[in-house]
Amino acid sequence: TGGTIGMKREMNGAYTPTKDYFLQKLKDLPMLNDKSYKFQREGHDNQWFAMPCQEGGRVLYRTTVFEPLIDSSDITVDSWMRIGEEIQRNYDYYDGFVVLHGTDTMAYTASALSFMCENLGKPIILTGAQIPIFEVRSDGIDNLTSSLIMAGLYKIPEVLVCFDNNVLRGNRTRKRDVEGFSAFTSPNARPIATLEISIKIEVPILEAREAENFRVTENMAQNVMLLHFYPGIPIDNVKPILQSNIKGVVLLTYGSGNITINPPDLLNAIKEAVDREVIIINITQCFKGSVNPAYAAGMNLTRAGVICGRDMTPEAALTKLMYVIGKKNWDHKKKREVMAKNIREEITIPDS
Amino acid sequence: TGGTIGMKREMNGAYTPTKDYFLQKLKDLPMLNDKSYKFQREGHDNQWFAMPCQEGGRVLYRTTVFEPLIDSSDITVDSWMRIGEEIQRNYDYYDGFVVLHGTDTMAYTASALSFMCENLGKPIILTGAQIPIFEVRSDGIDNLTSSLIMAGLYKIPEVLVCFDNNVLRGNRTRKRDVEGFSAFTSPNARPIATLEISIKIEVPILEAREAENFRVTENMAQNVMLLHFYPGIPIDNVKPILQSNIKGVVLLTYGSGNITINPPDLLNAIKEAVDREVIIINITQCFKGSVNPAYAAGMNLTRAGVICGRDMTPEAALTKLMYVIGKKNWDHKKKREVMAKNIREEITIPDS
Amino acid sequence: TGGTIGMKREMNGAYTPTKDYFLQKLKDLPMLNDKSYKFQREGHDNQWFAMPCQEGGRVLYRTTVFEPLIDSSDITVDSWMRIGEEIQRNYDYYDGFVVLHGTDTMAYTASALSFMCENLGKPIILTGAQIPIFEVRSDGIDNLTSSLIMAGLYKIPEVLVCFDNNVLRGNRTRKRDVEGFSAFTSPNARPIATLEISIKIEVPILEAREAENFRVTENMAQNVMLLHFYPGIPIDNVKPILQSNIKGVVLLTYGSGNITINPPDLLNAIKEAVDREVIIINITQCFKGSVNPAYAAGMNLTRAGVICGRDMTPEAALTKLMYVIGKKNWDHKKKREVMAKNIREEITIPDS
Amino acid sequence: TGGTIGMKREMNGAYTPTKDYFLQKLKDLPMLNDKSYKFQREGHDNQWFAMPCQEGGRVLYRTTVFEPLIDSSDITVDSWMRIGEEIQRNYDYYDGFVVLHGTDTMAYTASALSFMCENLGKPIILTGAQIPIFEVRSDGIDNLTSSLIMAGLYKIPEVLVCFDNNVLRGNRTRKRDVEGFSAFTSPNARPIATLEISIKIEVPILEAREAENFRVTENMAQNVMLLHFYPGIPIDNVKPILQSNIKGVVLLTYGSGNITINPPDLLNAIKEAVDREVIIINITQCFKGSVNPAYAAGMNLTRAGVICGRDMTPEAALTKLMYVIGKKNWDHKKKREVMAKNIREEITIPDS
Repeated sequence: TGGTIGMKREMNGAYTPTKDYFLQKLKDLPMLNDKSYKFQREGHDNQWFAMPCQEGGRVLYRTTVFEPLIDSSDITVDSWMRIGEEIQRNYDYYDGFVVLHGTDTMAYTASALSFMCENLGKPIILTGAQIPIFEVRSDGIDNLTSSLIMAGLYKIPEVLVCFDNNVLRGNRTRKRDVEGFSAFTSPNARPIATLEISIKIEVPILEAREAENFRVTENMAQNVMLLHFYPGIPIDNVKPILQSNIKGVVLLTYGSGNITINPPDLLNAIKEAVDREVIIINITQCFKGSVNPAYAAGMNLTRAGVICGRDMTPEAALTKLMYVIGKKNWDHKKKREVMAKNIREEITIPDS
Repeated sequence: TGGTIGMKREMNGAYTPTKDYFLQKLKDLPMLNDKSYKFQREGHDNQWFAMPCQEGGRVLYRTTVFEPLIDSSDITVDSWMRIGEEIQRNYDYYDGFVVLHGTDTMAYTASALSFMCENLGKPIILTGAQIPIFEVRSDGIDNLTSSLIMAGLYKIPEVLVCFDNNVLRGNRTRKRDVEGFSAFTSPNARPIATLEISIKIEVPILEAREAENFRVTENMAQNVMLLHFYPGIPIDNVKPILQSNIKGVVLLTYGSGNITINPPDLLNAIKEAVDREVIIINITQCFKGSVNPAYAAGMNLTRAGVICGRDMTPEAALTKLMYVIGKKNWDHKKKREVMAKNIREEITIPDS
Repeated sequence: TGGTIGMKREMNGAYTPTKDYFLQKLKDLPMLNDKSYKFQREGHDNQWFAMPCQEGGRVLYRTTVFEPLIDSSDITVDSWMRIGEEIQRNYDYYDGFVVLHGTDTMAYTASALSFMCENLGKPIILTGAQIPIFEVRSDGIDNLTSSLIMAGLYKIPEVLVCFDNNVLRGNRTRKRDVEGFSAFTSPNARPIATLEISIKIEVPILEAREAENFRVTENMAQNVMLLHFYPGIPIDNVKPILQSNIKGVVLLTYGSGNITINPPDLLNAIKEAVDREVIIINITQCFKGSVNPAYAAGMNLTRAGVICGRDMTPEAALTKLMYVIGKKNWDHKKKREVMAKNIREEITIPDS
Repeated sequence: TGGTIGMKREMNGAYTPTKDYFLQKLKDLPMLNDKSYKFQREGHDNQWFAMPCQEGGRVLYRTTVFEPLIDSSDITVDSWMRIGEEIQRNYDYYDGFVVLHGTDTMAYTASALSFMCENLGKPIILTGAQIPIFEVRSDGIDNLTSSLIMAGLYKIPEVLVCFDNNVLRGNRTRKRDVEGFSAFTSPNARPIATLEISIKIEVPILEAREAENFRVTENMAQNVMLLHFYPGIPIDNVKPILQSNIKGVVLLTYGSGNITINPPDLLNAIKEAVDREVIIINITQCFKGSVNPAYAAGMNLTRAGVICGRDMTPEAALTKLMYVIGKKNWDHKKKREVMAKNIREEITIPDS
């Protein structure tokens, strides 16, 4: 798959791939495998590696492979559940986790995991490559090295994306660029850390939760749709979606949260869906910025019962909807409340 | 409407708004109205204004108001047709045209006009404001002043967006930022011009077409849908769209043009739609970059008859589809051919 | 003078210029002069203006002109003293001060005033224009409007540069670009505020000092030199400078603070100057970044008694030297101590 | 030396370092040493390496070490002469050359070589690292790999700096950032090439000169000074420099090329130096932009015989002066003419 490491792999302080091929290649890279290091304890099998010593310490990691390997564009909600299970099973035994992931859907997976991993107390870092990791000009070695250092030596209890020397909050991240190495960005939030000659933590670190409280959600809803508005959108094709068995809708509206109110059909169809307990959230289709519930046009949506998504990314809005709607023991009111509230900083709440 | 001039207005080297209010305010702005200039010729009514003299000459302009004024989020295909008609009626009498437009849908209108205005030989410049033009901190005066200078003194025969000292190709432009003054950008193309202490033309100017060949398209199709993919998109909600009476579809796919091929339902539904002569075009959901037809995952779409949209914006892909499908005397083959080919540089064709 | 408003003018919540011309023009600008406002109190002469009402309140300001007007490149230490005196005389009567200044030396003046104005409790904002304020495309109106709002409505007790919708700390600011409107930046510090649709304060505000403690320094030293290193710099021309009657030297060194130690002449000449109580400070010639006293090559300078300037700008290092050396009642030890210490955040001190 | 590979090394399609250590380490890096490749021809000693096959071909390279290794901050004009000689001796036998260089003075060396290497027909690429090449997070491998590919597979007949996936014209390049990986930039010129998933050539390639005409200049002058102006610069310390045996001076002036003309001493001292055939060139101290000879304040310098340096970097202006003044068979008039004219695109000449 164009421009990715080519498969999803999971690392619990650990890693693997086209399995034997990947492990063999990893052994040849001195920055990822210090051959002089002797593993001594039992239980250190041949999937354990030691990075060279460096400022801050030495990172040891063990690799795990998902089988079958999945192309990034084939990622599904089931894949997220499997990654979550793998982390849960290994949660107590590692300081952090690195997930190797194709770039195409990495922002979706990072957003999903940020909601699915409840009471997180350790870093879960997603990374990948624009050029596959064993090609001459690959960015994959740098990205993997950086991610292992961040996961092993920095106690940032979040789902993060580490790419091109930036560490970004997972549920703020978008794939911005198909071709450049700086493929990911978080348009509405500063990086959590930047890697230069030194590693700089740029924002206050979230609170780590107690290890015993960590759990992965048991369910993610799937009947969630995204509606991107544009002038001339045929209402006759939009209404059936709103009238279907869908449970959640992300509206990608203009600017600060506006859609047309002429003719009123569209607004009415939205209102009817809200009345049927479809959860609808309003975010902007602009790359940067926030829906503002105070503006007139957006007001109509708010009055119709649409939740203001502020500056959420589409990736975060979709996966948070899947998470919230998937909660079997929450009633509709609770789901709406959680949807409107900040879980793991996926929205900016203004100071005032 | 949040962050816009508040209404669409059209200027044929000219301008107007909440009508009397706007004209009155315009008169008070010395950079837009040189009171010392005496209009002498007949036909110079009180909607004519003269900018002060400057390097390159003096810009005279006349204002025209659309009634009723339309909120930017209420723009429709009909609005585009009206703007087109207004320009056509005045085409021979002016050196260029400035369209005042709310920011929310400006990129859509600019893209639409770039296709609708056939054989263009004069500048048509869209501009607006993040803060309404008569507020203290408005960017509207700068944007209007710059646009009038570009339209009056520079012979760039294109539909352009002029905003925050950048002149961008209309069908390359996107609204990137809800809140900042630098709201527009063209992620896959350098600016046409930048306004600094000097005005710098940054790229070769397109060829101007003969004035007698200019015409505005007579029709824009409206049954066109946009499908934004994401992991877990419910195929059962996507299929009805592809099976409806829709005539064109823009696929917003991952990275360099990928979607999942598991299960094959989705690809089959796409293929069936293509067979029913629905025109489907594949562009990336990344903010920057291009679909690449050579990649494996994208290949499946190409083989299914989906057109590779390269680095088109969603705004351009949608409005070009409306334009092409709307052509009554083109057969399906011709429509597909034009859709795949560059009209007014809305895609980058690599040098090869 | 190219690219400036054309003269230095001072505003104590107030303003003036080629005197009558400027005042006359100011009256014609509705965003700077609300003609409907009636000044009633005595003492409101015809140099008082009212901006239109806006969110946060209405800014009233009075203009004062320096005579003769000074070209920005002719600014001297005396000019700084005069601006300081003017502010001191008016300090109690205004909420803030705006200084109109040519762009060429604005970063020097902002840096100088930040040290000269001791115990500052009110904003002093410098601004100007790349295109003179009464030309059609001038950025001067926006810059002046923004500065008056920041000075009148925001209580940021600092010397600031407000330019192109950024509010920068004065002693962090550099003129980065000769030709673009975004002429100023603070490479080693985030903006204090950014002006978008809303005005956003980006960093914690410094503590305001008690009004009765405000004073302007009585003296600035002038025998201070700047030495920019490069391969092949002729030591025979450098030594006479170090051996002259100079009292302070700013070394612009490579990268993180390095100079050659071969031959040792240069280092010896530096050491001798330090021994004669010349205060020498080491900053980087890179546009961004910091001298690091821990590195080997920089160590030699530290051992020779050179003060580590961390991430100071050349403008701040020069003017702080002038300020510190100018203190008549400080002994050499005290001067060195203050030079190494942070006064008004002109350097970044790492968290450690 | 902080933030560098730690030594200057030269590669003629080739490379070396702390000699044995560096060669040993290089052997361990699969992207720089394809162990499966068999060198067969005689003359392929153990300093030859093969990169893995890739799109465009396979790069073979041979390493050469300078002894003693030189710290980047200790680079002198003699070092440049030695690098030049090494390239000249090997010129016919390689397709391109890579010079490993510390970052601190790399922009100076790149500028110097661009003038010294007359009638260049092959790429000479300088690169280095912010973190030494054998540390875990080093950027050196990427930089070296990219440079070898550019030197071996792309026929760009220029002195270039390749760093952080940008290929910059050598005499346009500056070290911008002490700490980030994107340390170099060319503020007044677009990159020659950018390395993304694909390698993109961004500007027209300069003409390659005939191989037989290549030669390295035999002499570089060293009595050249740089004067950075600032308000309060003590004229009494500046005059002795201008009156010394100096042959060339770079003036770093304000904005578009201004200095104070009050008192006239300074201008008179400059004029006297010009009359004594000191070559003086005026460039801006702003990071970006150009001196403009048309402006009033700059006019005074032009009238005094100072050459307008347009948008040259200080690094280019200094090394071009060294080159031009070093020409033994050029008379003063010729030197002034060459100094004012574009040699290898070190200045931008406007279109008109």
